[in-house]
Amino acid sequence: MPRIKLTIEYDGRGFVGWQRQDNGLAVQEVLETAITGYCGHMCPTFASGRTDAGVHALGQVAHFDLPRTDPPETIRAALNYHLKPHAVSILTAEIVPEDFHARFSCLGRAYLYRIVNRPAPLALESGRAWWVPKPLNAEAMHEAAQVLVGRHDFTSFRAVACQSKSPVKTLDSLDVRRVGEVIEIRTDARSFLHHQVRNMVGTLKRVGEGKWTAHDVRTALAACDRSAAGATAPSVGLYFLNAHYEV
Amino acid sequence: MPRIKLTIEYDGRGFVGWQRQDNGLAVQEVLETAITGYCGHMCPTFASGRTDAGVHALGQVAHFDLPRTDPPETIRAALNYHLKPHAVSILTAEIVPEDFHARFSCLGRAYLYRIVNRPAPLALESGRAWWVPKPLNAEAMHEAAQVLVGRHDFTSFRAVACQSKSPVKTLDSLDVRRVGEVIEIRTDARSFLHHQVRNMVGTLKRVGEGKWTAHDVRTALAACDRSAAGATAPSVGLYFLNAHYEV
Repeated sequence: MPRIKLTIEYDGRGFVGWQRQDNGLAVQEVLETAITGYCGHMCPTFASGRTDAGVHALGQVAHFDLPRTDPPETIRAALNYHLKPHAVSILTAEIVPEDFHARFSCLGRAYLYRIVNRPAPLALESGRAWWVPKPLNAEAMHEAAQVLVGRHDFTSFRAVACQSKSPVKTLDSLDVRRVGEVIEIRTDARSFLHHQVRNMVGTLKRVGEGKWTAHDVRTALAACDRSAAGATAPSVGLYFLNAHYEV
Repeated sequence: MPRIKLTIEYDGRGFVGWQRQDNGLAVQEVLETAITGYCGHMCPTFASGRTDAGVHALGQVAHFDLPRTDPPETIRAALNYHLKPHAVSILTAEIVPEDFHARFSCLGRAYLYRIVNRPAPLALESGRAWWVPKPLNAEAMHEAAQVLVGRHDFTSFRAVACQSKSPVKTLDSLDVRRVGEVIEIRTDARSFLHHQVRNMVGTLKRVGEGKWTAHDVRTALAACDRSAAGATAPSVGLYFLNAHYEV
């Protein structure tokens, strides 16, 4: 029973998120159905992390145990065949050691958040970015973001429903840059709290608008109170970028 | 009656193209309905060029005569309001001289064609790029593309249905470059024949696959016979990039 590591791209629209739920179609469900279609068995999958409804992935990682042996290229092609017509694509399939675990072996995750910052509403980027019509100062957002880098109690940026044991996390990077009318926010950490990225983005938007300074972000962080920070940015702008491992 | 120049973004999916047709919804129809919703009058619109079904626009240009006077910002905001929920967005509205004509004053058009060149099918880019799973050599495509630059009889790259008086056009540029797994093909000319860009891209794909050389492209061009060149690339990868004018 080789263990298979999958790297997965998906369009979060139309899904209730990664994890199976009663209220709609989950990416996990579509993937497990495709695996069953391919190998004839129900094989549970485990992801590096859950994503919420509407959140996209450019490089989600999941693993499962395949009750037969096939070359990785065959596995990828077969799964992609069975995934049609869903907006889920297996970028790579790899055979990994038996002790590999997409969640527990993961050494770090990266997310990208995309804001389209222009007066005109979105046509081509609709559902794939957050539309913010008023001008944002990306440099000020980047500067204020540095307040959040490091080891902190992120209670102010944590969803009420968060199941993490501790609100203390180490944020390795949080970079904001403007590329034309797009503001890209990229962040790296070993792990994130529920809604942490979207709550950080919603807070940095206040800075970009000129309503808040880096000092206000520091105060919000120190408050350890969700209501002290900014609103949760919409899911449509968030992309699970990658997960990294020793193997 | 000020003449208004609009710069327009649209997602070509779900439209039969720019021009009104009997067989489905056109961008022109949606725009003219929005203009009527805004000003209460039916105002015909004229575009710099038609786009086919499924072709996107990042900067289509159209004009119309508005039977009242409003600031450009009001016109843009009102049209975007009335365009909802269609994937059409007015990027800018400008008041231009009465003799401005989106089609006849146009000095040049630019198109972008996007190929995603990777083994895995498209999830996030589905409907927004041409998926080519086999590796393409972008450098060879760029080199061969230079054969087409200049003034030529483009009969070999012209749709049978093309209504242009002459097949002779001057291609100002045709550049192919790889950006990660995306191959971007950008082209500029005063005007293009019907399907010319898609037929050039379909031909360059043969070069990218190693089936053709620059010499074969030259031979296809010289043949002045549509069947001598490559297949028409799909509409989903094509973007009307911009149109330029003296004003």
